[in-house]
Amino acid sequence: MAAGVGFLSSFTRDGKSLPRYQPTGKGLKLTFKPYELQLKHTFTIASNSRTTTAVMLTELEWEGVTGYGEASMPPYLGESHQTATKFLAALNLSQFKDPFRMEEILDYVDQIMPGNCAAKAAVDIALHDLVGKLLNQPWHRIWGYSAEKTPLTTFTIGIDKSAEVVIAKTKEASAFKILKVKIGGGNDEEMIKSVRSVTNVPLCVDVNQGWKDRQQALDKIHWLKEQGVVFVEQPMDKTNFDDNAWLTQHSPLPTIGDEAMQRVSDLVKLHGVYSGINCKLMKCTGMREGHRIIEMARSLKMKTLMGCMTETSCGISAASQLAPIVDWADLDGNLLISNDIFEGMKVVEGKVTLSDLPGIGCRKL
Amino acid sequence: MAAGVGFLSSFTRDGKSLPRYQPTGKGLKLTFKPYELQLKHTFTIASNSRTTTAVMLTELEWEGVTGYGEASMPPYLGESHQTATKFLAALNLSQFKDPFRMEEILDYVDQIMPGNCAAKAAVDIALHDLVGKLLNQPWHRIWGYSAEKTPLTTFTIGIDKSAEVVIAKTKEASAFKILKVKIGGGNDEEMIKSVRSVTNVPLCVDVNQGWKDRQQALDKIHWLKEQGVVFVEQPMDKTNFDDNAWLTQHSPLPTIGDEAMQRVSDLVKLHGVYSGINCKLMKCTGMREGHRIIEMARSLKMKTLMGCMTETSCGISAASQLAPIVDWADLDGNLLISNDIFEGMKVVEGKVTLSDLPGIGCRKL
Repeated sequence: MAAGVGFLSSFTRDGKSLPRYQPTGKGLKLTFKPYELQLKHTFTIASNSRTTTAVMLTELEWEGVTGYGEASMPPYLGESHQTATKFLAALNLSQFKDPFRMEEILDYVDQIMPGNCAAKAAVDIALHDLVGKLLNQPWHRIWGYSAEKTPLTTFTIGIDKSAEVVIAKTKEASAFKILKVKIGGGNDEEMIKSVRSVTNVPLCVDVNQGWKDRQQALDKIHWLKEQGVVFVEQPMDKTNFDDNAWLTQHSPLPTIGDEAMQRVSDLVKLHGVYSGINCKLMKCTGMREGHRIIEMARSLKMKTLMGCMTETSCGISAASQLAPIVDWADLDGNLLISNDIFEGMKVVEGKVTLSDLPGIGCRKL
Repeated sequence: MAAGVGFLSSFTRDGKSLPRYQPTGKGLKLTFKPYELQLKHTFTIASNSRTTTAVMLTELEWEGVTGYGEASMPPYLGESHQTATKFLAALNLSQFKDPFRMEEILDYVDQIMPGNCAAKAAVDIALHDLVGKLLNQPWHRIWGYSAEKTPLTTFTIGIDKSAEVVIAKTKEASAFKILKVKIGGGNDEEMIKSVRSVTNVPLCVDVNQGWKDRQQALDKIHWLKEQGVVFVEQPMDKTNFDDNAWLTQHSPLPTIGDEAMQRVSDLVKLHGVYSGINCKLMKCTGMREGHRIIEMARSLKMKTLMGCMTETSCGISAASQLAPIVDWADLDGNLLISNDIFEGMKVVEGKVTLSDLPGIGCRKL
């Protein structure tokens, strides 16, 4: 066995000697680097278009082992290279000599400043990668999940006024067994009809708060159900609890809260308002709280969707560790970029397919 | 390094070679054995007295590594050597070739028959001990908790009509820094006054559903607060949600649901009814669901108490893995017996003190 600082090699049990990392007086070392994701296609939402997403790449080193993390910062969420640099530079992680004290370390990171959820996730993910490597197991196994129970991942078809563009995008997505169609932009029927003209796969729809009237919303859902839609994401304004709850109660399809859902503290408020929630590591500060959210949603008998931003395979592999226990996955963020620098979770025949690598399950290319 | 079936020794990372247990085609092997705990003192409750507690000891073996578990079965909960034997004999765990698939294994155990919560916990605890040993870390570290953050443990003073007996018992408990006083038997004031006559430590009280009138209950709580009581456990009937909720809303002390709390599915129903809950592994089927309950209660901003039955240091050490994140602990069950056959968590100056052993943190004597 390779000897090493940080190993307790004298521990024996049942005649076998296993190494164990123990605190050695050395602190955690955090480094970070801005990076710009190049999107394969221009990303258009109501307010603007963009061809890049700012990310911050992190590394957390301890005793010669390095964990990787990432913050993805789409502009509408308010974080940037500047805010993340300020946040990460303010952290003193060298005070922590034992990476296994994750609760204490991540409480410190969460409490040092409000907001900065993606930057917090970048530390959380790197810490999970580090500790998982020290345990030499991927997190889905440490959490007790079975790798092959992952769902299919959706692939997103954005809103477009041109039916030809929607049809072309849908054809390009023929490798996927379920599609997420963005609607709520005033041409819902056209969007669905265009997609349906070239595919029979199940669809889900993301309204992004686009519907204003609950009765109209319910009528639309009845029609969508006939078109083979399986759930409806964020139908109305995230602050309108009453109408979303009414809709959920009457809807023949599950409703999913996304914009309404950020931290674990939101979850109990959404119980009864939506059928389920969309959990994204970049919104909830990372894997530790993401794990809490998914586990708690299941205990509340709520549906679970694991989502993402445009991210490298680092963030996507981290989110995928929770995929074996969710109902649906929307983990296509690494497929939308042309300059990924990690390799990990892969979509195989439409299904989230975990690597066997320890930690968050990815390797740097 | 000791070679062994089940090791993947070729995996290298950062120049260090760590072993990893991998599935090898061998199934889990469960064995179990009835045992009778001898109580140091006769245990008296309203309905009867007893001097023993039936337990079932389990062992789960895989690839030469053995995990230990235990079911503690006080007679009023309906399980016995007979029921546990029937339940455990019905399990086919050899079908599982990979102990890390805990969710799948424990779902199978939970769904094969209803009830049998202590017998289910005996499998769950042994599985956690096994997997923790394979990871060579105790569960409090795998879960990311800091060992020294454990609370004091309470020690229980039972109801007795004789003030002398109560005073003598309290004096015997002088090593403890917080006491749990059983009340609700019609002599609440006498009980507290007897205890207070010989100690100044904080007290908590367990009413065991003994109070019938909410206004009287509230008056009692105001008086108890003046006597240095810090929380009130199960004040009224577990099925009386309205009065317990009213009491919680008006009480100057936190209320804790115990008889009302069993499985994680109960928790959301108790949110708003009690300030917190008492989690016992023997009621909730073990560490996996216990971890869920404690984490979810914290997310709901509810108070948490980790409790136990009379158990060996096996069950107590398992429960103690969650102690670093609970508000209070009532983990004195191994101190009440004279024939413990395990060694693990110890009470040091009144505080729950975890061992550094892997898994559930105990060893067989």
